[in-house]
Amino acid sequence: MAYTAPLDDMLFVLEDLCGLDAIAQLPGLEEASPDMVAAILEEAGKFAGNVLSPLNVTGDQQGLGFDDGAVTTPTGWKDAYDQLVEMGWNSPTAAPDHGGMGLPQVVNACIQEMFQGANMSFQLCPMLTQGAIEAIEGYASDALKETYLPNLVSGVWTGTMNLTEPQAGSDLAAIRSKAEPEGDHYRISGQKIFITYGEHDMAENIIHLVLARLPDAPAGVKGISLFIVPKFIVNADGSLGDLNDVRCVSIEHKLGIHASPTCTLAFGDKGGAIGYLVGEANKGLQYMFAMMNNARLNVGIQGIGVAEHATQHAVAYAMERKQGGTPEGSAPTIMGHPDVRRMLGLMASRTQAARILAYRAAASLDFAHRAEDAETRAYHQRRVDFLIPVAKGWSTELGVSSASYGVQVHGGMGFVEETGAAQHLRDARITTIYEGTTGIQALDLVGRKIARDKGEAAREIIAEMRKSADALAQMTAPGADWAALSRGVAEAAHLMSETTDWLVSQNGHEPQAAAVSVLEMFGITLGAWAMGDAALHAAKRIADGRGSKALSAKLNFAGFYMTNVFPQARGLQQIAMAGAGNVLTLQSADFGV
Amino acid sequence: MAYTAPLDDMLFVLEDLCGLDAIAQLPGLEEASPDMVAAILEEAGKFAGNVLSPLNVTGDQQGLGFDDGAVTTPTGWKDAYDQLVEMGWNSPTAAPDHGGMGLPQVVNACIQEMFQGANMSFQLCPMLTQGAIEAIEGYASDALKETYLPNLVSGVWTGTMNLTEPQAGSDLAAIRSKAEPEGDHYRISGQKIFITYGEHDMAENIIHLVLARLPDAPAGVKGISLFIVPKFIVNADGSLGDLNDVRCVSIEHKLGIHASPTCTLAFGDKGGAIGYLVGEANKGLQYMFAMMNNARLNVGIQGIGVAEHATQHAVAYAMERKQGGTPEGSAPTIMGHPDVRRMLGLMASRTQAARILAYRAAASLDFAHRAEDAETRAYHQRRVDFLIPVAKGWSTELGVSSASYGVQVHGGMGFVEETGAAQHLRDARITTIYEGTTGIQALDLVGRKIARDKGEAAREIIAEMRKSADALAQMTAPGADWAALSRGVAEAAHLMSETTDWLVSQNGHEPQAAAVSVLEMFGITLGAWAMGDAALHAAKRIADGRGSKALSAKLNFAGFYMTNVFPQARGLQQIAMAGAGNVLTLQSADFGV
Repeated sequence: MAYTAPLDDMLFVLEDLCGLDAIAQLPGLEEASPDMVAAILEEAGKFAGNVLSPLNVTGDQQGLGFDDGAVTTPTGWKDAYDQLVEMGWNSPTAAPDHGGMGLPQVVNACIQEMFQGANMSFQLCPMLTQGAIEAIEGYASDALKETYLPNLVSGVWTGTMNLTEPQAGSDLAAIRSKAEPEGDHYRISGQKIFITYGEHDMAENIIHLVLARLPDAPAGVKGISLFIVPKFIVNADGSLGDLNDVRCVSIEHKLGIHASPTCTLAFGDKGGAIGYLVGEANKGLQYMFAMMNNARLNVGIQGIGVAEHATQHAVAYAMERKQGGTPEGSAPTIMGHPDVRRMLGLMASRTQAARILAYRAAASLDFAHRAEDAETRAYHQRRVDFLIPVAKGWSTELGVSSASYGVQVHGGMGFVEETGAAQHLRDARITTIYEGTTGIQALDLVGRKIARDKGEAAREIIAEMRKSADALAQMTAPGADWAALSRGVAEAAHLMSETTDWLVSQNGHEPQAAAVSVLEMFGITLGAWAMGDAALHAAKRIADGRGSKALSAKLNFAGFYMTNVFPQARGLQQIAMAGAGNVLTLQSADFGV
Repeated sequence: MAYTAPLDDMLFVLEDLCGLDAIAQLPGLEEASPDMVAAILEEAGKFAGNVLSPLNVTGDQQGLGFDDGAVTTPTGWKDAYDQLVEMGWNSPTAAPDHGGMGLPQVVNACIQEMFQGANMSFQLCPMLTQGAIEAIEGYASDALKETYLPNLVSGVWTGTMNLTEPQAGSDLAAIRSKAEPEGDHYRISGQKIFITYGEHDMAENIIHLVLARLPDAPAGVKGISLFIVPKFIVNADGSLGDLNDVRCVSIEHKLGIHASPTCTLAFGDKGGAIGYLVGEANKGLQYMFAMMNNARLNVGIQGIGVAEHATQHAVAYAMERKQGGTPEGSAPTIMGHPDVRRMLGLMASRTQAARILAYRAAASLDFAHRAEDAETRAYHQRRVDFLIPVAKGWSTELGVSSASYGVQVHGGMGFVEETGAAQHLRDARITTIYEGTTGIQALDLVGRKIARDKGEAAREIIAEMRKSADALAQMTAPGADWAALSRGVAEAAHLMSETTDWLVSQNGHEPQAAAVSVLEMFGITLGAWAMGDAALHAAKRIADGRGSKALSAKLNFAGFYMTNVFPQARGLQQIAMAGAGNVLTLQSADFGV
């Protein structure tokens, strides 16, 4: 089922809910006028629908080849990658002085959603390269930047992030890989697992960013450094030299993303891979944390992209599949069945809400990086920090859930692989795990993002939610129950406020036991705010004579969200606040061990 | 990860919550004394753990062979099947006069849970045979019984149910397969899809039960008849004759249950397969409906079995995987992490609650079939009819959700197929679809089971729940917050009562739009009742000096369930009662089509 980029909704969210006009006035982003952005997104949508989407199913079916350390991508992938590089889609936000497009983060969020939605296995490669670019742009020396950035930005080379080791997953403090100094470089040794696109055949070189420990580095998180380890050594003239001492030992046989190589990399089996220190020694984890917002947002956006694709797939099936007619008459399509419509409504309305949240976070990244006023920058940085764990955790959980509803809408056909509905579920299932599990996002939210600042960032958002509730209460346009929407957003703000107060007042382990319920609840309440705002702006556009089918639909989906999604929030709050104690009561022995 | 049958919990539920003593006094079930049942279940547990469980992973990995109409099961499967037949496990409830064990349904529920939990792909074969036996036992002529039952009961032959056709899935009224009379038999033609174990190499013969239409049969549901169509014609002396005109055209490539052949069967390509009418003409669908309670309960039990296996798997990993230590000390296992314990608590407590519900439904099947008093039989039949859609729908949904939590507990390793956690999710995913989707169960619940009798069966259960709440309020034993448990069960009864009143008062399409939310809510509220009762009986056993680790754990899980699962019920009620209107408001155009 071909993916179609939801351009209308994306542009509506960018313009009316993310302040694209104001973003286009930030220093360095002057090119991002709404017209230019619309043109860019239209082209990106074509690439997603025409090039990436057809390869999604064939890539899943064909999978990867692996022979003696070499990974072969599925038929057509290298060609598609060449087109991506050719068209400049590899790194839309990279600075123009390194050959990037210099687009706002919020516009990149749309592009990433399209590409991830069309073909998650493929787009993981550019996504990881973007992380490598960001690390080098942010922390490497000018010499390293000059050597590595241009080819990474263009995509002639790709990048990887080498964090995980067998004993070091969620807990990176346990990293054991070593780096021995040797002249102007280091010799890296150790084993890294779960390295996405750690080896493949689509690009000339692969630039690994590797966390490792220097000799005599302090134990734990403060003794980890970041290194560039190229697959092929780059000569002084920029040409490629010898193969470095890095080897892909195996690739994983996974539930999903079958066409994305997940590699075990052995560094230093022949004496040590040559690596170059990025920034200062022992600051590697700090650099990683600084990059984490972008990476986590991108994974959240994967969840949204897959949810959108699964929704389109299920809607198409529901419009075509006939079932349940009378003996006399022809059967109606299952779109007419209330429960099918309920499932599609859950898929579509939550995807729309999560899109708004994620794009708002991306817009705040732009303001946080580029606003001229320090106070504005700080305000948006707090907002980014607060929204990211929710955008990552909630969007990926609803991505999995939407893909599962997509299977259900297809009935028995959904369980048959050829239908393609099951692939969305298999692919989406990784998104709640990598780049920090939902549990890790939730600990970040309740710990670093709420407890540490005593709820300040949360209360700033809650204040905005209350303004939205007030604005909704003033609305009188036809097509929505504004009083109900206003009450919903007001209650959402109230629940968040109560929960924030509770979290700030806790001392023991309760916040940890409650964390995921809090995260889910905040996702739902922030989603209610997003859908309330969306209805408000949709009604304004309609009143201005700029209405469309999608905007009228938005009013229905906002109403649906408030009565079919939002009511879970209070139950989740109860579970968080009253249930944490009973989580901590459970002992190993209760599980029979 | 080897499956271990939860014998202690099963026996506790049978004895204290399902009235095993009283069941063993029903006519024909006198052999089922608690001691005998314990011995039988112990043997069944060994077969599940030692024979079926090891084949679960290898069967998934190897999958099925298909060549020119012949299906090859994975290595070791035929041998395991022979053992099943040898040991008499094929059809534990079949009447002794046909060679069955004549065990109570409630004891069979335990056996099925073990075998399904250990190896769902395998146990689907006996499960389908049990359905065929039930159809023949219930409705076929004595001659057909004599010809087919002994070998089906022993398992020397297996059985299938041929309902679905490409245009007839949830809606069987659309069936087109034909049956032309020819002497003492019929010639069957048509195509059936999704036929579980429609072809395989484990048994000498396969007895297909096929829905088809006689010439001039009325249109719709009242023109469908049921036929026996053997793979090999059975000669008058009982020996096997010619191959019948039935051919396996293809098998499906599926998300899960890779070792269970899902066949497309072509009947009558060479002039018509020979078939024999079961019971009266045009009553086929009525017979199917009469068998549906058992079939649906069995699928619900699959959900519980897979949930149990996934939980055991995740607990074992959580006790072994170390992560998150300090630089100085060794890392604790992730069992110590509150969020891991929360996920395991959700898995275990809901599985336990669903087990009680399903076994209670099975116990009522025994009373409904065998109680001497007509009033008792009628009471239990109402209870069975009411509980079945909940036991099927809720148990399978939580089976999928538990398997997904199991993946999450494993982190990145959960996404790697070799770990085995993902298989539970892939396998479980079909259970909410076949034998009536969750949506179909929910329509059955709100329509046939609540609206039709104006809530009578529901109110009988609600009255029992109130008695349980009263009993909990009287408890003073240590180890549980009895007041909280009592309040929970009382609120559960109240929510069900309100929702039943609402459903009975509705006329439009609201109940259909609300149905799945109602079903989920009833699952959770009935689960609260089950866990409240379980705590009550566990405390009594402990007070009687018959305590165990599992019984003390039950008190903790009941408390956990009440604060971590039950609070979702009120939100679901709100969604059902206030959200249905907004489901019906959504139009095709809102989905962009």
